[in-house]
Amino acid sequence: MTQPAEIRAKIRTGAFKRPTAGEASGFVQANLVIVREKHAFDFLLFCQRNPKPCPVLEVLEPGQPLTRTIASGADIRTDIPRYRVYREGILTETMDSISSLWEDDFVAFLLGCSFSFEEALLKNDIPIRHIEERKNVPMFKTSIPVVPAGIFSGRLVVTMRPIPEALVVRAVQITSRYAMVHGAPVHIGSPESIGIQDLSRPEYGDAVTIKKGEVPVFWACGVTPQAVLEEAKLDLAITHAPGYMLIGDVKNEALAIL
Amino acid sequence: MTQPAEIRAKIRTGAFKRPTAGEASGFVQANLVIVREKHAFDFLLFCQRNPKPCPVLEVLEPGQPLTRTIASGADIRTDIPRYRVYREGILTETMDSISSLWEDDFVAFLLGCSFSFEEALLKNDIPIRHIEERKNVPMFKTSIPVVPAGIFSGRLVVTMRPIPEALVVRAVQITSRYAMVHGAPVHIGSPESIGIQDLSRPEYGDAVTIKKGEVPVFWACGVTPQAVLEEAKLDLAITHAPGYMLIGDVKNEALAIL
Repeated sequence: MTQPAEIRAKIRTGAFKRPTAGEASGFVQANLVIVREKHAFDFLLFCQRNPKPCPVLEVLEPGQPLTRTIASGADIRTDIPRYRVYREGILTETMDSISSLWEDDFVAFLLGCSFSFEEALLKNDIPIRHIEERKNVPMFKTSIPVVPAGIFSGRLVVTMRPIPEALVVRAVQITSRYAMVHGAPVHIGSPESIGIQDLSRPEYGDAVTIKKGEVPVFWACGVTPQAVLEEAKLDLAITHAPGYMLIGDVKNEALAIL
Repeated sequence: MTQPAEIRAKIRTGAFKRPTAGEASGFVQANLVIVREKHAFDFLLFCQRNPKPCPVLEVLEPGQPLTRTIASGADIRTDIPRYRVYREGILTETMDSISSLWEDDFVAFLLGCSFSFEEALLKNDIPIRHIEERKNVPMFKTSIPVVPAGIFSGRLVVTMRPIPEALVVRAVQITSRYAMVHGAPVHIGSPESIGIQDLSRPEYGDAVTIKKGEVPVFWACGVTPQAVLEEAKLDLAITHAPGYMLIGDVKNEALAIL
């Protein structure tokens, strides 16, 4: 059994309940979004129009719980350690399996996650502050509108990583290769330009130290679709819990565009 | 008025009725596919799963005939010089406007076209034989299955361009930058390996000369979705006629991934 399949098997049986950051090094990890079939076209269109926050790795047919592309037969009802259930846009339950909720009109979307490009940054000796400080990445709501699609609209959520001035260009180059996992930054420098007032008070995740000579660099964040789902107030939507991802069989390197 | 908008205005009034190859140099041209809303999710999913033959540039909301991204307010009912109408999978009509057919449940997809990367090849002094010989590009059905989605399935259609041996690597590099318009080749060399028996007998377009020292190089082709639509036998589907494209306001260079 491959390493990702082994971890998924442990997650399925409840033997693995932790966040997945740092697990199965080299393999892709994915965000999950489940909506009903009646909203699936709008959501796929939303992803197509907003590929930086919503890079689509795989979409399953309505009612289909088993992946084919990102992993061989991963069961998206059980193979993620923690799920969030939203009803009418409100987070109502956190679960470690969604088998009991599964319905034939559920459509599962697997979206790229920044863990993939962080690995590439680290390989290039570009420091990642929230990893150094053992925190969750700081996330901010911006003033940048996403491109609406049907019932889905809202504003872009970004992650922030402080990068030493001399390494900013290299960080852009490296992450540009990974368009399937949020890709190049959306903004470099002044937080105010994108509607962020205070870097020490992130909306999600933890604040991190910004040292002298470091520039805040902002990437589109996979929390964007969760925020958009909340605003759309669907009768039911399910996502992974932040940090608890689906571990795939595909190598991060296989997703690089060049 | 920009050059693309001027040409679109002429097309709309019937003053321009020719194929669009070579017009509005530097600007993107797009394939059109229209399906009913009930098939739109399946078709968008098909495109997501087969990005090389079906690179999505823009998808319009159901019933919406005006583009927003690829061009400012191009009317996809009138701004293409020639359309094809398929009923139950059979080509039944060729029209120069589809205004009389338009219905509120039509969803328009605009897909990338190889004209964009051909311009980049020519700028790099890589010869394009069908342009030299004033022919249509040769197109072949392959044995390569597309990834099915819902009712859509079939085999990949490719274009073939003979490239001098010494320029094959450069041709791969150049077209790799244009993932939104078919991107890198799908195959280099032996036609038999992908189920093509005779390069002198293309299924669509015209045969071209292959000179000594040239290698046949194959790219995914925008005719693939037309072939797939025919097989799916939808009650109604509309496409542009091959070579008669929508001319957008976006520069080809703006679509380069790096």
